Amino acid sequence: MNPSTSALLTDLYELTMAQAYLEQGMNGPAVFEFFVRKLPAHRNFLVAAGLEQVLDYLAELQVTQEELAWLDQSGWFSSRLLHYLETLRFTGDVEAMTEGTVFFPHEPILRIVAPLPQAQLMESRVMNLLNFQTVVASKAARSVLVAEGKPLIDFGLRRAHGAEAGLLAARASYLSGFAGTATVLAGMVYGIPLYGTMAHSFVQAHEDEIIAFEHFAHTQPDNVVLLIDTYDTEAAAGKVVPLARRLKAKGIAVKGVRLDSGDLADHARKVRRILDEGGLSHALILASGNLDEYRLRDLAQDHAPIDSFAVGTAMTTSADAPSLDCAYKLQEYLGRPCRKRSEGKATWPGRKQVYRYHSDDGRLDHDIITTLTDQLPDEPLLQSVMKGGYRFASSPDLAELRNHTAAQLRQLPESLRTLETGPAYEVQISPALQSLAHAVDAASNIKGDTI
Amino acid sequence: MNPSTSALLTDLYELTMAQAYLEQGMNGPAVFEFFVRKLPAHRNFLVAAGLEQVLDYLAELQVTQEELAWLDQSGWFSSRLLHYLETLRFTGDVEAMTEGTVFFPHEPILRIVAPLPQAQLMESRVMNLLNFQTVVASKAARSVLVAEGKPLIDFGLRRAHGAEAGLLAARASYLSGFAGTATVLAGMVYGIPLYGTMAHSFVQAHEDEIIAFEHFAHTQPDNVVLLIDTYDTEAAAGKVVPLARRLKAKGIAVKGVRLDSGDLADHARKVRRILDEGGLSHALILASGNLDEYRLRDLAQDHAPIDSFAVGTAMTTSADAPSLDCAYKLQEYLGRPCRKRSEGKATWPGRKQVYRYHSDDGRLDHDIITTLTDQLPDEPLLQSVMKGGYRFASSPDLAELRNHTAAQLRQLPESLRTLETGPAYEVQISPALQSLAHAVDAASNIKGDTI
Repeated sequence: MNPSTSALLTDLYELTMAQAYLEQGMNGPAVFEFFVRKLPAHRNFLVAAGLEQVLDYLAELQVTQEELAWLDQSGWFSSRLLHYLETLRFTGDVEAMTEGTVFFPHEPILRIVAPLPQAQLMESRVMNLLNFQTVVASKAARSVLVAEGKPLIDFGLRRAHGAEAGLLAARASYLSGFAGTATVLAGMVYGIPLYGTMAHSFVQAHEDEIIAFEHFAHTQPDNVVLLIDTYDTEAAAGKVVPLARRLKAKGIAVKGVRLDSGDLADHARKVRRILDEGGLSHALILASGNLDEYRLRDLAQDHAPIDSFAVGTAMTTSADAPSLDCAYKLQEYLGRPCRKRSEGKATWPGRKQVYRYHSDDGRLDHDIITTLTDQLPDEPLLQSVMKGGYRFASSPDLAELRNHTAAQLRQLPESLRTLETGPAYEVQISPALQSLAHAVDAASNIKGDTI
Repeated sequence: MNPSTSALLTDLYELTMAQAYLEQGMNGPAVFEFFVRKLPAHRNFLVAAGLEQVLDYLAELQVTQEELAWLDQSGWFSSRLLHYLETLRFTGDVEAMTEGTVFFPHEPILRIVAPLPQAQLMESRVMNLLNFQTVVASKAARSVLVAEGKPLIDFGLRRAHGAEAGLLAARASYLSGFAGTATVLAGMVYGIPLYGTMAHSFVQAHEDEIIAFEHFAHTQPDNVVLLIDTYDTEAAAGKVVPLARRLKAKGIAVKGVRLDSGDLADHARKVRRILDEGGLSHALILASGNLDEYRLRDLAQDHAPIDSFAVGTAMTTSADAPSLDCAYKLQEYLGRPCRKRSEGKATWPGRKQVYRYHSDDGRLDHDIITTLTDQLPDEPLLQSVMKGGYRFASSPDLAELRNHTAAQLRQLPESLRTLETGPAYEVQISPALQSLAHAVDAASNIKGDTI
């Protein structure tokens, strides 16, 4: 059983609602949009991610015989629903922002237009995929912005929330500009560059630290990065110097050392001096250990001589904001725009488009959200990516998406690039969209509230 | 490709270290233990979870031909390692605390004894599984403790970190006392009771709210729980009363209503009155919407007439503490106990056991961590669960584990049951373990630091 592809990885109510729709013949075209209601704390912008996995899911979804048998014996569902699920394929249209695009609250990043039961059934997993990768890509981008071009590596698998989270966090952080990951499966599945050194256990399994280093150098002669903090960091750095001479005689170069504990800036300065004085000025210093964008910034401000950083748990779990206040909402059914008016959760109705305007220096200036029919003379951010259940073309490769993301991050104004929360980016609601919302409220004859 | 079962869901360094061990003939018995270094903020105790998935992983792990081919062409690895991986099976022993057992920092909850390369290769996924389920079980237990026996339902799939996180969070929260989940796959895979109502989109897809309710009642006559906050909560409650009379004539009972926004206590009181005055005193009120243990406690203190709660994102992501400061550390190799002494990350050496002592009222009083050989005349918390790669017996079923967890939570002293952080629970390090640590430090001839 692969939870990543199971059609039963969904909420019970998606199935019971689909059953009700089928019974009532409510199979008309429905429009759902995915958007974020408000930015999490400590975020000035978000980076759209997860579209590729959503399209895979939509294109490949089917209910297996085993799942059908289980649904049948559960007693929850009508035979009409079971027959429907037996041949279920997604036949709808999808429009979306390219992965890596910077976006803001109330801007849809994905729209699904499909027969109502289908569009409803996709809700749980579509949200699950977009929420997580967007959370991680947005968090990772903050580290990239403060790292001053130094390579960042994802070391987060062990504290990611399960298998898929580890794999997708590697993808989302690479999208946002990380140089690579330690997660081998992400190398195999996504072609992401792999990085790795050694664990403390490797040093401990040997009776002598320097013998451990020597063994490692011989087994990975092209990747000699030595973890030097198991016992005493500077003492270990001192031992690396004569070892490097011995290895050099055998044609093996010490590529670098890793620090994983203590005051990283202080250790880095001392270790740098020891290495330089020992003729190892080419050897890099990699740091790891509870790093996040704030510690990266502090280390940069402190001019710590660290060449590369491994960032794990804080990024993979987006520790300070592990979820988005996001929604996948019905915006139109049978051509009738609709909106939810629950307190604090009201939405803008109908099919929408987002346009972006830049200032003279090429930085983002403001966005306009409007109705899809109110076509502005500019490039819209949502583009068609699937028609009738078929993807338009092969998906852009991850390297292209990574370039797109880098270009997006370069366009951020300074006020959005900092780790501090600044004034909100300007997102205008067009007169056309405001009129539509009023018309929907008036037609519904029920008092509305405002967003 | 199923990331949950792939042998390549591991960190690169596990493979490079295994390669070095094989080259050096370091294939002797290694002892690794998994433990937590310190409690996260806002936690007085942890609940061990994830063992079942670890044992499945260890028992079933193999490297596929496709994975081997990829490893080969990657150029990272020696043919010796590839041959080793081709026939790799886990042949080690495992001792562990029963899932649902309450535990504290420095107490191992799992020990693996296996040939060094094997034990090392398992690190990333073992940590990934134990960290996540323990995080969620520990968070969910806090809601259970303040819910005063009212049923709690997991609604977190959509903001869980990927597919496996959604599935395993349903399991971990059920283990800790949740009544069930909305995640259908968790019903199929783990037999967890399913719960669900309807979404706002269901109401919006209909032109009239009351017609939506009626349709739902006919399709799910045994599960008529109506979401009443799409437009105006009290107005909708007022409409439910005459609807319930019409449905009753057809033999359908309105089981309850769901509130998902606004001031839940205020709405619940008003809705309760409307339902009671309308003859629907049997109808339950279910609340959802950004709930966590603090909001549950506030609603309880406010005597809000809510019968059941759906808890989603905050629990599934363990929002205030999305990871543990946990470790899987080498404690012994070839019979030689070892310890890591990195600053702030020092560990207790050797194979350990945990004993627990209760006060006269049956509540937890203190624990003792000691060496495995220092057998105390009490029931040890770690028990053997796997020998030579084979599980001892079929695993305990989830219902039994849930009973065990409930019994554990009943034994918590009041100081640990509250949401506030109190004085730490007493965990003693035995004289035998302290002596061993000193002996290891003395033997290593390197200055040690203290924990």
